[in-house]
Amino acid sequence: MIIDCHGHYTTYPAGVDTYRANQIGQLHAPSKGAMRVTDEEIRHSIETGQLKLQRERGTDLTIFSPRAAGMGHHFGNELTSRYWAEHSNDLISRVCKLFPDNFVGVCMLPQSPGATMAGSVAELERCVNELGFIGCNLNPDPSGGYWQSPPLTDRYWYPLYEKMVELDVPAMVHVSATCNPAYHTTGSHYLNGDTTAFTQFMQQPQLFKNFPTLRFIVPHGGGAIPYHWGRYRGMNLNLGRPELSELLMQNVSFDTCVYHQPGIDLLFKVIGTDSIMFASEMIGAVRGIDPQTGFDFDDTKKYVDALGLSDADQHKVFEGNARRVFPRLDSLLKARGK
Amino acid sequence: MIIDCHGHYTTYPAGVDTYRANQIGQLHAPSKGAMRVTDEEIRHSIETGQLKLQRERGTDLTIFSPRAAGMGHHFGNELTSRYWAEHSNDLISRVCKLFPDNFVGVCMLPQSPGATMAGSVAELERCVNELGFIGCNLNPDPSGGYWQSPPLTDRYWYPLYEKMVELDVPAMVHVSATCNPAYHTTGSHYLNGDTTAFTQFMQQPQLFKNFPTLRFIVPHGGGAIPYHWGRYRGMNLNLGRPELSELLMQNVSFDTCVYHQPGIDLLFKVIGTDSIMFASEMIGAVRGIDPQTGFDFDDTKKYVDALGLSDADQHKVFEGNARRVFPRLDSLLKARGK
Repeated sequence: MIIDCHGHYTTYPAGVDTYRANQIGQLHAPSKGAMRVTDEEIRHSIETGQLKLQRERGTDLTIFSPRAAGMGHHFGNELTSRYWAEHSNDLISRVCKLFPDNFVGVCMLPQSPGATMAGSVAELERCVNELGFIGCNLNPDPSGGYWQSPPLTDRYWYPLYEKMVELDVPAMVHVSATCNPAYHTTGSHYLNGDTTAFTQFMQQPQLFKNFPTLRFIVPHGGGAIPYHWGRYRGMNLNLGRPELSELLMQNVSFDTCVYHQPGIDLLFKVIGTDSIMFASEMIGAVRGIDPQTGFDFDDTKKYVDALGLSDADQHKVFEGNARRVFPRLDSLLKARGK
Repeated sequence: MIIDCHGHYTTYPAGVDTYRANQIGQLHAPSKGAMRVTDEEIRHSIETGQLKLQRERGTDLTIFSPRAAGMGHHFGNELTSRYWAEHSNDLISRVCKLFPDNFVGVCMLPQSPGATMAGSVAELERCVNELGFIGCNLNPDPSGGYWQSPPLTDRYWYPLYEKMVELDVPAMVHVSATCNPAYHTTGSHYLNGDTTAFTQFMQQPQLFKNFPTLRFIVPHGGGAIPYHWGRYRGMNLNLGRPELSELLMQNVSFDTCVYHQPGIDLLFKVIGTDSIMFASEMIGAVRGIDPQTGFDFDDTKKYVDALGLSDADQHKVFEGNARRVFPRLDSLLKARGK
């Protein structure tokens, strides 16, 4: 079984943008309103998009969440984010109910700059307990590129972590769109977010002493981290700490959203297969065929296949690690006899 | 000849910190004051530091600039930065005069959040024409981690670029310390700065049509860029543009400050040797011996040597590219019969 741990609903029907445009443009106090999307529209968008590519590429199940760039936590206030998150997560739930064999849900959180974690805790609980979701996406920078929140190791985030531990669900650390003209959302802000988050964990590894079962996925192949693994190992050893593999990699995994063979080769050379989860983020930031290979840039299964991993390692990366990091996925699959 | 294109005076005598502490702490209007450092102190710091390592590692010449984290453009105002830059650059000039065979100067600029480029233009001119410097370090984020300046492709920066072109000197894009608690200066902020700058160039390559001879070095192995080369190639090709190697890499070089063999292997696999310059950034962020290799993490010559490059490629990476990107270095060496 091949599980893609990182997919967003980027191909949503037009009613989603209509809702969001009205929400952001409204001149009165935030109200929830309705998001008008039919099952038929959802079915069409998925069948001609993600599901088609799953079949073509030979993957089985995508861990699916609202469009990351669309989370836009910097718009409006806590209530804006709450209504938007509820609608967005409900939409993912509808996808998962229409295609239960192919998609399982991960929620966005109703974060807002400066807001407490209370709303995010409530929405996580709703999504896990009522919608059957198995994790969440956590934005380390709800300001959209001005980085005004405390580091992820700060107690500010602890109420969410307590709930994650209680529910036994992980978070993928994932920024959203940037409103800072210095950044490009998918070009620099996404990868900077990954690099920044991992470095925060490295600075204050006490977090994982306080929450030994807390688990994060740092996406996009871990940002700049594996490429500079020597830099991080060196800085960390200088502090008299154990190797990063021991210090952090029980709690942190990287995905395989790295869109060329040399990048994937490096990732697997420096990071143990226990801490790598297969993912493609399709249909995402990079679309189109690489003229050098003749296949889609984001068809990451081809790069992983080319590694010639042992059966045991393949199983970890394609399935086993995802079932371990997302125990609710494991339970769900076992209940289905898989 | 082996040229290290990226070294900072991190081992400066105590008088430097005393000056800076007094400058930042002073309660009245900025005044230039004196920086009290003797030639003997400089000689000692260099002979027991960078020069010792040059000899041990078999490198010949370091392109040397003030400590990057110390630039601290976010402190004080334009005048604070001006006095600090003048003193810091004068100090580099003294190192270069004491050890003319081993160090050649690159200046920091007196940037300040929101300030025009006028002061930076004047200091660049002074350093090149009066002190014999061959380039500058340009901070894309003088706010120290809040990214409040326009992208490097914006006309805001053009007066500096005009002067760089006129003087025929390149800039290394290099952020300074961060005052944003979300970032770690050398862990995330440095690499994010590199990734962000390159992405800015990719977004608005018109910059290099307007300034065909403008040259930048993106340090630390290009941040996250080479590891995600497929991502950037794909995003760029999607825009109907030529390959990045053609679009940007005549104007942009990466250095080799990547502190493990797999990272250097990847860098050379995806980036042409015309666009890579040898560097170690010693004595810098990562100190100490890698227990896996038995030598210093930042002894990057060992990783490059292990590549088994052809003589022609070795010459480019160790010497030729630096002489091309820094034409004033080439002239200086030729005048010395080298």
